[in-house]
Amino acid sequence: MRDRCRAAARWGMLARMIVLFTDFGLHGPYTGQMKAVLHQSAPGIPIIDLFADAPAGNPKASAYLLAAYDDWFQAGSVFVCVVDPGVGGPRPPIIVEADGRWYVGPGNGLFELVQRRAGDKQSWDIDWKPERLSASFHGRDLFAPVAGMLARGEPPPGRPRTEGAERRPDWPDDLGEIIYIDHYGNAMTGIRAAHLAPGTRLAVAGRVLQPARTFGDLPPGGAFWYENSNGLAEIAVNQGRADRGLGLSIGSPVGFLS
Amino acid sequence: MRDRCRAAARWGMLARMIVLFTDFGLHGPYTGQMKAVLHQSAPGIPIIDLFADAPAGNPKASAYLLAAYDDWFQAGSVFVCVVDPGVGGPRPPIIVEADGRWYVGPGNGLFELVQRRAGDKQSWDIDWKPERLSASFHGRDLFAPVAGMLARGEPPPGRPRTEGAERRPDWPDDLGEIIYIDHYGNAMTGIRAAHLAPGTRLAVAGRVLQPARTFGDLPPGGAFWYENSNGLAEIAVNQGRADRGLGLSIGSPVGFLS
Amino acid sequence: MRDRCRAAARWGMLARMIVLFTDFGLHGPYTGQMKAVLHQSAPGIPIIDLFADAPAGNPKASAYLLAAYDDWFQAGSVFVCVVDPGVGGPRPPIIVEADGRWYVGPGNGLFELVQRRAGDKQSWDIDWKPERLSASFHGRDLFAPVAGMLARGEPPPGRPRTEGAERRPDWPDDLGEIIYIDHYGNAMTGIRAAHLAPGTRLAVAGRVLQPARTFGDLPPGGAFWYENSNGLAEIAVNQGRADRGLGLSIGSPVGFLS
Repeated sequence: MRDRCRAAARWGMLARMIVLFTDFGLHGPYTGQMKAVLHQSAPGIPIIDLFADAPAGNPKASAYLLAAYDDWFQAGSVFVCVVDPGVGGPRPPIIVEADGRWYVGPGNGLFELVQRRAGDKQSWDIDWKPERLSASFHGRDLFAPVAGMLARGEPPPGRPRTEGAERRPDWPDDLGEIIYIDHYGNAMTGIRAAHLAPGTRLAVAGRVLQPARTFGDLPPGGAFWYENSNGLAEIAVNQGRADRGLGLSIGSPVGFLS
Repeated sequence: MRDRCRAAARWGMLARMIVLFTDFGLHGPYTGQMKAVLHQSAPGIPIIDLFADAPAGNPKASAYLLAAYDDWFQAGSVFVCVVDPGVGGPRPPIIVEADGRWYVGPGNGLFELVQRRAGDKQSWDIDWKPERLSASFHGRDLFAPVAGMLARGEPPPGRPRTEGAERRPDWPDDLGEIIYIDHYGNAMTGIRAAHLAPGTRLAVAGRVLQPARTFGDLPPGGAFWYENSNGLAEIAVNQGRADRGLGLSIGSPVGFLS
Repeated sequence: MRDRCRAAARWGMLARMIVLFTDFGLHGPYTGQMKAVLHQSAPGIPIIDLFADAPAGNPKASAYLLAAYDDWFQAGSVFVCVVDPGVGGPRPPIIVEADGRWYVGPGNGLFELVQRRAGDKQSWDIDWKPERLSASFHGRDLFAPVAGMLARGEPPPGRPRTEGAERRPDWPDDLGEIIYIDHYGNAMTGIRAAHLAPGTRLAVAGRVLQPARTFGDLPPGGAFWYENSNGLAEIAVNQGRADRGLGLSIGSPVGFLS
């Protein structure tokens, strides 16, 4: 909480943005069609591609990633989040408000860590219905229009949830797994670095890695972990790719030795 | 036609957008330079990346893809379409108006299905010339400036076409081929699902596939076809990639058994 | 210089844009977070993705690429340039003004060719400090906020540089190497075509290539070089990929025979 408020205080002005967090990819028609709906329904509000390559079909890994990256955005921002292997199935479409930010997407655990780490939070079952809902693209037909309503300041189009069926109390506070591999081959864990004791080593793929402040502290080819720019413990190789070098992929387990 | 009008009616407001449909990729300078020209010439009008990965150098497959995705956009929208293996050669640069939407690009068949399926349509030979026209990038130098003019409400800078040399009357109304592979490995055909009798099976790569409503109706690994969110018959594998699993690529023939 | 002014004169209006030139990729959170900062700090100014795939960790190749693509943009435009293998190390964060355009990024040679080819130029050491500077993401924390200030018309937040420690006088005026491979497999050199005598042949990967005006001038599979749409000598194969066909990658040497 304290960290989240501090992040908000870093910004001078208050600007609402719509933030996309999906596993749709930027290519192909999916992200473009979502943006067309958002421009139509909330004209003039900037739309940010945060992740179009969230862990595909993996709401659990995605939940830890989202909770690490959302607090860079202002209160009032609206996150459209679609990592939804159950599209067309029974998971509820929901809205979450957490510390003044809005989240729209499937109630499949994707917002669990956002909710758990927030001070003030509320959630709604979406009861608005589009004129036509395709079976396979709720991001465009349902979630984007609802996000547009929230972005232009309308109240959440739904009923308050009470039962918490979208919650995942059994998921840990920090996830000892690789949750994202970036463009450079760096491997993010679901562990917040601030929650590790100084000097903690990470155990991954049969290796034990020391912490370092940044890449330049290691020789070329050296593997290490560091606190990335959003506070996650991230595994990297100086001038190399940690994913290929160490054989890491999403879901690889990560332990720690303090 | 009826479907197209129904799609337009789904939207409450009328917003013009500029829509990019190219095989340029999002990386590299091409899409960015087109957008710079469009922002310059039609300030404030949203630009949507619909496809930057249309079938490369394949105006025929692209024509069926475009005609399936364009009617999500309002009358007044302007499509800049560049799938242009003959750039620098003799194909004419044209403008098409179809049911109130504008299309700018090469007259190589790319707009054939848009024109054929539209109620009202007209076309023009572009006679506007940029101060400087590169041999290889008409998207930036010619098509984007013309699209900007149309987006800001100017009349088409050209002469009405009469001869229809850009038309392809020999192309079928629906194309029994794979025309696009998406991010998830799903394979879109050029066949509109509404034109298939209920229960129709598709024959592809030596397999016969049953229809299903959505992914959850099949066991993991099961292959099927369904009507995608833009009305095309699409081949998919539940929790798998249809392209690799079935050996599909753009141009693979698709038959049907009713 | 003459070329650069002619490019500027091609545009009617004067519009400021913010242009991104990085090796971050479009996927993942990096480009999105930069854009969020830029929207926040310079609302309403269009942001163009020029290159998100500049030669990774290679400021020298990137410098020739940037200098070939920047003059398509108006005076007043602000380039945020991050190809920064030394992030977290001692290279200075700088601002360059060259012929009315602004550049923000690491002082590691990335702006050498822009500066060398400009008529009027000036540079500054950035002395503005963000409230919090991550060790690994100066693009978001330092360069984007400074670019936002410049884009909204504020004076450069820094001290004029005098010593020129960011310059690379030993780099050639044109670089006889492959500096970029595009989406189609075309290979750009760091050589401006206008600086080659008519009929010059290029020697690359054990082959000698003739010039051609455009793709259609060669038979399918034929390799050649041509002046690309931004003036660089570029190696291509008609209906093929030059990178795979000729075995080219960034850094491959290119000679010329006139």
